[in-house]
Amino acid sequence: MSQPLRVGVLGATGIAGQQVLAALWRHPWFTVTAVGGSDRSAGKPFSDALREPSGASRWFADGRPDPAVFSLPCRRIDELVDAPVDLVFSAVSKEIALEWEPRFAERIPVISTASAFRYEPDVPILIPGVNDAHAEALHDQRRKRGWRGFIAPIPNCTTTGLAVSLKPLHDAFGVRAVVMTSLQAVSGAGRNDGVLALDVIDNVIPFIPGEEEKVELETRKILGPWEEPASFSVSCTCTRVNVQDGHTETVFVGTERPVNPTSAAAAMERFGVDGLRGLPSAPDRLLRVDADPFRPQPKRDRDAGDGMTVTVGRLRDEPVLNGVKYVVLSHNTKLGAGKGAVLLAEWLTRESYVDRGP
Amino acid sequence: MSQPLRVGVLGATGIAGQQVLAALWRHPWFTVTAVGGSDRSAGKPFSDALREPSGASRWFADGRPDPAVFSLPCRRIDELVDAPVDLVFSAVSKEIALEWEPRFAERIPVISTASAFRYEPDVPILIPGVNDAHAEALHDQRRKRGWRGFIAPIPNCTTTGLAVSLKPLHDAFGVRAVVMTSLQAVSGAGRNDGVLALDVIDNVIPFIPGEEEKVELETRKILGPWEEPASFSVSCTCTRVNVQDGHTETVFVGTERPVNPTSAAAAMERFGVDGLRGLPSAPDRLLRVDADPFRPQPKRDRDAGDGMTVTVGRLRDEPVLNGVKYVVLSHNTKLGAGKGAVLLAEWLTRESYVDRGP
Amino acid sequence: MSQPLRVGVLGATGIAGQQVLAALWRHPWFTVTAVGGSDRSAGKPFSDALREPSGASRWFADGRPDPAVFSLPCRRIDELVDAPVDLVFSAVSKEIALEWEPRFAERIPVISTASAFRYEPDVPILIPGVNDAHAEALHDQRRKRGWRGFIAPIPNCTTTGLAVSLKPLHDAFGVRAVVMTSLQAVSGAGRNDGVLALDVIDNVIPFIPGEEEKVELETRKILGPWEEPASFSVSCTCTRVNVQDGHTETVFVGTERPVNPTSAAAAMERFGVDGLRGLPSAPDRLLRVDADPFRPQPKRDRDAGDGMTVTVGRLRDEPVLNGVKYVVLSHNTKLGAGKGAVLLAEWLTRESYVDRGP
Amino acid sequence: MSQPLRVGVLGATGIAGQQVLAALWRHPWFTVTAVGGSDRSAGKPFSDALREPSGASRWFADGRPDPAVFSLPCRRIDELVDAPVDLVFSAVSKEIALEWEPRFAERIPVISTASAFRYEPDVPILIPGVNDAHAEALHDQRRKRGWRGFIAPIPNCTTTGLAVSLKPLHDAFGVRAVVMTSLQAVSGAGRNDGVLALDVIDNVIPFIPGEEEKVELETRKILGPWEEPASFSVSCTCTRVNVQDGHTETVFVGTERPVNPTSAAAAMERFGVDGLRGLPSAPDRLLRVDADPFRPQPKRDRDAGDGMTVTVGRLRDEPVLNGVKYVVLSHNTKLGAGKGAVLLAEWLTRESYVDRGP
Repeated sequence: MSQPLRVGVLGATGIAGQQVLAALWRHPWFTVTAVGGSDRSAGKPFSDALREPSGASRWFADGRPDPAVFSLPCRRIDELVDAPVDLVFSAVSKEIALEWEPRFAERIPVISTASAFRYEPDVPILIPGVNDAHAEALHDQRRKRGWRGFIAPIPNCTTTGLAVSLKPLHDAFGVRAVVMTSLQAVSGAGRNDGVLALDVIDNVIPFIPGEEEKVELETRKILGPWEEPASFSVSCTCTRVNVQDGHTETVFVGTERPVNPTSAAAAMERFGVDGLRGLPSAPDRLLRVDADPFRPQPKRDRDAGDGMTVTVGRLRDEPVLNGVKYVVLSHNTKLGAGKGAVLLAEWLTRESYVDRGP
Repeated sequence: MSQPLRVGVLGATGIAGQQVLAALWRHPWFTVTAVGGSDRSAGKPFSDALREPSGASRWFADGRPDPAVFSLPCRRIDELVDAPVDLVFSAVSKEIALEWEPRFAERIPVISTASAFRYEPDVPILIPGVNDAHAEALHDQRRKRGWRGFIAPIPNCTTTGLAVSLKPLHDAFGVRAVVMTSLQAVSGAGRNDGVLALDVIDNVIPFIPGEEEKVELETRKILGPWEEPASFSVSCTCTRVNVQDGHTETVFVGTERPVNPTSAAAAMERFGVDGLRGLPSAPDRLLRVDADPFRPQPKRDRDAGDGMTVTVGRLRDEPVLNGVKYVVLSHNTKLGAGKGAVLLAEWLTRESYVDRGP
Repeated sequence: MSQPLRVGVLGATGIAGQQVLAALWRHPWFTVTAVGGSDRSAGKPFSDALREPSGASRWFADGRPDPAVFSLPCRRIDELVDAPVDLVFSAVSKEIALEWEPRFAERIPVISTASAFRYEPDVPILIPGVNDAHAEALHDQRRKRGWRGFIAPIPNCTTTGLAVSLKPLHDAFGVRAVVMTSLQAVSGAGRNDGVLALDVIDNVIPFIPGEEEKVELETRKILGPWEEPASFSVSCTCTRVNVQDGHTETVFVGTERPVNPTSAAAAMERFGVDGLRGLPSAPDRLLRVDADPFRPQPKRDRDAGDGMTVTVGRLRDEPVLNGVKYVVLSHNTKLGAGKGAVLLAEWLTRESYVDRGP
Repeated sequence: MSQPLRVGVLGATGIAGQQVLAALWRHPWFTVTAVGGSDRSAGKPFSDALREPSGASRWFADGRPDPAVFSLPCRRIDELVDAPVDLVFSAVSKEIALEWEPRFAERIPVISTASAFRYEPDVPILIPGVNDAHAEALHDQRRKRGWRGFIAPIPNCTTTGLAVSLKPLHDAFGVRAVVMTSLQAVSGAGRNDGVLALDVIDNVIPFIPGEEEKVELETRKILGPWEEPASFSVSCTCTRVNVQDGHTETVFVGTERPVNPTSAAAAMERFGVDGLRGLPSAPDRLLRVDADPFRPQPKRDRDAGDGMTVTVGRLRDEPVLNGVKYVVLSHNTKLGAGKGAVLLAEWLTRESYVDRGP
């Protein structure tokens, strides 16, 4: 790549935006040239927007941005619509995304962590290596909406681990039914509406509003042919546990064709990521199986593949649904958010969905 | 009850035994007159057995024993076989239970928290109010084994909440299939082989050896007719989370006859505990349904009914198994252990399974 | 007491107000007849103000209010100024307290958990049993300000345990210098500005803005003669740890006269609470010494005396300051907040500082 | 260094030994050629010794050993005494260290994480960059004991952060008195005698047997001239908090000469590590000062300098002792244990205290 693409990050002062910035640290293809923040931050250098009057830092993500980002001026989102960037990462709230992502997409690609457009019929939810063929739909989206760019959202962070682990099973055995319980990390709730320590110390919160519906819809959309959702049924219960990062999910799968723990493990281990080779944020493996019966564990496995590898363990026969059951873990703020968005941008760039602007 | 029964507690210095002792505090029917401890404790007054040389207390249970218990001498288990007690609570390890519970049962009833005999064909696993008819089997057990007493185990603490919540559904709608994921508290592992903080801070442990098999077997044994296990299938994944007390379980149920969240809630709310009325440790309700979508939570609901009420929440339609799904919580060291054992002893006493010795 | 006093609770929907309400459950002297809430709550019955549209409960305190409270209408604070109550508990923010507590004090006593007036020269910070003589100043406050009522704040929750434990040492040995480090529970921060789980899982936060200054000022004000602060110096570092309730403090004390662990323990054990006898919320002991070297611990000791007893442990010689060092624990939301405020109201009532209105 | 030194690790299967092995991963100077384990492990390849029969891994340290280590045979400690290694790291218990470290030291240098010999008059406790001159004493130790090797222990992990932070203050202002409270991570207790989750969830444990005495003795020994301990007094209270890694300490210091937060920070920032340059495990800075008032925090700062940099924050005037107070954080299992031991070995090697064997 002769010259880096210029990228903007919307919502850069929020935790999701910070995660995108951290994932772009020393990125060989992308250079952050514009950052959007809240009205409170607008006009300040990004470094100042991250500093409280008390001297406290508001940088909360693991890792850090490129040093050059600190001196970029934070701008209001409306000031960024015409900024000279080749693509934007949108890490804003659903409400802001609904209003502003289309404005940016008129001109340039928008890679989004927000859920605002995920359920639109012309918007694919993309995980590189899992449903690459869906990307074609971006051309139709462009055409239909009269945009030069497009909106390409990543899935909800709870969908990601489930979809990645189901993909090789679906290909090999035909998934017929899925029952899933998630034990989600508190970082998934972000900071603005973050989980209070009071509520999660010595506790489990058995409800995350909207989450179960998202996972059920998204998993079937991602794993189906583009024309319609996958035909299997999915039922979820999503809970919050006292974990910082890393969503654990227990998964019970019924299949069309006979499967057992050995054949399921083989299918998962075989699951190739040829399509990801050469992408700067791609892990060696998108999916790995751990034979240790006590794994995966969020603390010990979330950083596999620098947070980009999904780990499956405890593969066993599933007697009720007639298939296999297992536990899957994925890093919700890396693969499931900022770094996953960057990986998608990389893949779309290599596949020529992103143009270098003038 | 004119005069209290004399009871012994085996394993009284361990955490499970301490929970039994706490449940017997100021008990109107039972007086602790003998306590068994480890070889290290033997011969010491119970108060001394609970005190480290450093002055540190080894009493770890919530609550406390009757003051009179502190001055009882701790005795080796073999010294207790002939002790003048009317029944014993056995809170020892499976290995010790295997060897010693039959020795006690030759003479007197043994109420056990150990799993050693739960899967024997002539041993019912009893939850008062749930499978009272199974208690008849104790007569056959006595006859067949030539014992004057019997062994009556309570279930594994993870089985209890599941079985109590399934009971009214099974009666009303016919349970056909159950998929369950547990999020278990660390107190379930006890202290000797206790969960290290290192392993559970910021973490989930996705495997508890032997637990899933226990829950699958026990639930069907408890909810079946005495002659055979219930015919429904059960599939579990049991995990450990960073919670002190209270096992949370997500349950997905398929039923024979149509059910919906409203009819399921009504069946659960109707679930009577007439058979428990008048027992000192019985709660007002064995099962309650909470309409707050964020409940049950271990920290906020485990002490419902002083730890003896099971709480269900999040009742929803279950699309995969065709039935209902919900979250259930029960206190693993109260209903699920010491106090549950005491409740069983009370019920057996009132139903004339326990004789006053000479 | 022939007829209960009528009390109002300002900020009743907040967590501090809920703690006051829980402390007033079945209170023999006080009946809650008015509750104030946020603008959002105004006009609704209190039960509705505690219920989210989703059905989620907003009652977060341990315990519960009297059933009659649920049907009281929540009112805006300005509507309550003329309400027919004999005293109010103020559990509002400092800013609201600054504006409104004087308005109420014109007419009736205000018992406050807010810090707004604690440092005024005519306002005593009262802990019944510790500095009862300071209550006299309320008469001067009334006179000087032309009020019929007064403002009587309790201390900051971190001051309470320190002041109670220092009191008998100061009386017996003359405190000369105090170095204190607090390990504070997250409940101390409340909910509006509550500690995020993200920030305290697997972590310590070494700074609580404003806290150290409060503790240093308040401890000297409480333990001095009324005319001036105690002459000893105090230096604090206040930290937040991953604990729900119960502030732990390590205290290093230098004394004027010789002291050792034994004489210090004796002074603490002797510390009488004769002045508290007969008050409904008073514990048997305001201060106890635990000889177990592993105590006090927040989880195991915060509920001593139903949350109203301060526990001291680890009394040792203090070589640097020439005195004694120890660890002290107190319940920050019971003795240190709601129930402490109710105890103060009880004491003031018995000492005739509160008049029954017409 | 032309050819790597051959090193042995005693106690390699334990968590402390694993931390040494992780610190030796891809080490340019040292190659692990011998590993000692428990009797249970003896004779097995190291990889097998780390694997439970259930398939569970017993590797618990962050990081991993060199792949070649997995195939080394685990040996009993007595079999290793004559092993052809140039130095050993001893990560065994105090009891085993007492017996075996001298046996090894007869022949080769022993770098020890155990406390067994720390308080011997001829044994320096070394922190490279802090008390390098004490290393001279190793020559006397060799001579006096008739050894070709020596025993060189690192300090207790709680001493390390304190000593490093006090060093520049002592040099610049003369430390006169120190009052310290530690908030220690659970990893400091290791696994064999590890902290139970039951004991630390929602809790603080206010006592760590022996810890306070160690820190008081070691800090004065390290910061004094070799001939005698530093003359200042130290008083500690050591507590355990719900943190995985990273010991936080609140420190109150009185000085001989005037100091203030600014001059203290300047002295700390100036604190050179010239003597560490070129050592593979040395951080860029051994000590850094953070101006953010909410730092240091264990979760966010323990990995500074890859776990080898001590972070100080909250520098303020100290009114009681007349000096400065601050909060200091250091990584207890990196700088304070395995990696600290490797750094010491590197320094001793460069300073020619280690000979290459035949």
